[in-house]
Amino acid sequence: MTEPLAPGACIGVLGGGQLGRMLSVAASRLGMRCHIYEPGAGAPAGQVAETVTTAPYEDIAALTAFARSVDVVTYEFENVPTTALDCIEAIVPIRPGRRALATSQDRLAEKRFLVEAGLTPAPFAAVETAAELEAALAQIGTPSILKTRRFGYDGKGQARIMSPADADAALADMAGAAAVLEGFVEFSHEVSVIAARGTDGRITAFDPGENVHEGGILRTTTVPATLTDAQRDEAIAIAHKILTSLDYIGVIGVELFVTPDALIVNEFAPRVHNSGHWTQNGCLIDQFEQHIRAVAGWPLGDGARHSDVVMENLIGDDMARLPALRSDAVALHLYGKAEARPGRKMGHVNRITGPAR
Amino acid sequence: MTEPLAPGACIGVLGGGQLGRMLSVAASRLGMRCHIYEPGAGAPAGQVAETVTTAPYEDIAALTAFARSVDVVTYEFENVPTTALDCIEAIVPIRPGRRALATSQDRLAEKRFLVEAGLTPAPFAAVETAAELEAALAQIGTPSILKTRRFGYDGKGQARIMSPADADAALADMAGAAAVLEGFVEFSHEVSVIAARGTDGRITAFDPGENVHEGGILRTTTVPATLTDAQRDEAIAIAHKILTSLDYIGVIGVELFVTPDALIVNEFAPRVHNSGHWTQNGCLIDQFEQHIRAVAGWPLGDGARHSDVVMENLIGDDMARLPALRSDAVALHLYGKAEARPGRKMGHVNRITGPAR
Repeated sequence: MTEPLAPGACIGVLGGGQLGRMLSVAASRLGMRCHIYEPGAGAPAGQVAETVTTAPYEDIAALTAFARSVDVVTYEFENVPTTALDCIEAIVPIRPGRRALATSQDRLAEKRFLVEAGLTPAPFAAVETAAELEAALAQIGTPSILKTRRFGYDGKGQARIMSPADADAALADMAGAAAVLEGFVEFSHEVSVIAARGTDGRITAFDPGENVHEGGILRTTTVPATLTDAQRDEAIAIAHKILTSLDYIGVIGVELFVTPDALIVNEFAPRVHNSGHWTQNGCLIDQFEQHIRAVAGWPLGDGARHSDVVMENLIGDDMARLPALRSDAVALHLYGKAEARPGRKMGHVNRITGPAR
Repeated sequence: MTEPLAPGACIGVLGGGQLGRMLSVAASRLGMRCHIYEPGAGAPAGQVAETVTTAPYEDIAALTAFARSVDVVTYEFENVPTTALDCIEAIVPIRPGRRALATSQDRLAEKRFLVEAGLTPAPFAAVETAAELEAALAQIGTPSILKTRRFGYDGKGQARIMSPADADAALADMAGAAAVLEGFVEFSHEVSVIAARGTDGRITAFDPGENVHEGGILRTTTVPATLTDAQRDEAIAIAHKILTSLDYIGVIGVELFVTPDALIVNEFAPRVHNSGHWTQNGCLIDQFEQHIRAVAGWPLGDGARHSDVVMENLIGDDMARLPALRSDAVALHLYGKAEARPGRKMGHVNRITGPAR
């Protein structure tokens, strides 16, 4: 157990998008300040943070000054370059730690880690060449999906292979990047577990949510999820296993495919997660505060759910619904982004559907 | 009905304390930015606002630049000088409006307004001289309480008069300021109504809360309050009457003394109110967002209460309890103030005591 950060402490956040924005608000509730580091101008998080550094991840002088100005560093996305992390870690702790980052940055490392931890990912094989893809398809079959090992999100860097004839086009889509072939899992639905582990090793999990995607982007999360009691317990046990195996500090999002026989681990994200946004209006302590508590060395808070909630993302043109949503009995959460581009997450709404079942 | 402010709009807030801080966070949820204007350095609101101007209320150039940079101005406290308001109002709307401010800045004007609106304040009389105080005491009797007309808060600027012999000392306490003598009301408890009125004239009220003070400072607010159904309805009707009579836009806090015969209006504050902090963890939409919605010309949100809550203020040395509170099943709200002086509000906690009764 680390000494908890005191009021007035400053938390460094790599990335200034909506997750950084909501982390900064949560930190303020605990009397802490945030310093946001973000390469792009006009960062949403900058509107509610004390300090913003706008500089690329290659700017060692800026990274050094940033690291020296804060008490701990966390991140809102997992693709921060290794050199930037090396620079920061020489000065101040990074939470969650490097192993969690390295594992989740690489789909192949992630799947190998899951297998070693005794968990079940979808069938997979490493693919860099046409010959390797042919061998992988022979082993895993079709339909399957080819994904880049790195830098994929919201369905980007993915190609479906419905029959072996699609193989060449899929490989071309990878543009030379190392990839992983994943077998198609016949799942009834996807759930995710948002869990947290503190510096004292204690773990707490929010109730699993049920996710619906459209075009590779999360559309809605509903709590409670459709799960038997045994499945719910297993889902949470999977999150515990991952957190403990990685000696993790902070919030993690674990996506699971529900099949009749087992819960298949799709992937995990070493950060607060879109499918945990419902906690803002369903729990006393939300995922953002839970993450700040963990990285600040505080005990984790009470994440018990008081209400049933449906979270819906507002993506691109969904912002045209704003006049109706303003009058609706929902909690709006907008991200302060100037331009509503297609596929861009602009906000979300949480609707309470009743007291917690 | 005004056209609602769009995402990206900027709200100017006069005052950078904890109320401004929580208003800025609420504005961010609606995709809006805040510009804080605060004479003192190190304003708590500045830690979560896009822009802070640190300048006195007498600095017309700074006020003008501030007003020009925002779409609407609101305030977190009611003692902004008239000259500052004149300067701002020539450029941009101030909400709630000047009449609400002028009325609440002056205890005598407030009480006269309440009587004109058909409501019941405590018995009162204007006092500037020893002769007027003697006459007022003859009319109202003792025990009674002498209060300055202006600039009183948290029990400051008040002197109790238990018998006519206390009159001279009480008048000396006013240090020459115009005052009001108030008769002592035999009340069983105090409740407050946090209500809001939008630019469309619609009104909504949160459930009344029951307040306990210590040393003139709010200690706890509990919802639901101890009220009969008829008293509850009357409390909310009183708030409606005040809002409508003042053509008010925004959130108001109305303090009421509960007596067997009537609800006596103690005072109202033309802003978000400490006794409404429970709404952050008891309702889908809290008082801060309701205020931002109103001043931004949005429809008011759903303020229905999902949980029973006890709010407790953390004042001065209460911060020594932080280690225990970190581990308690409460929502902490700290204000980012560097120094815990006696009587200074440092934060509050909300404890959910069960589903809404």
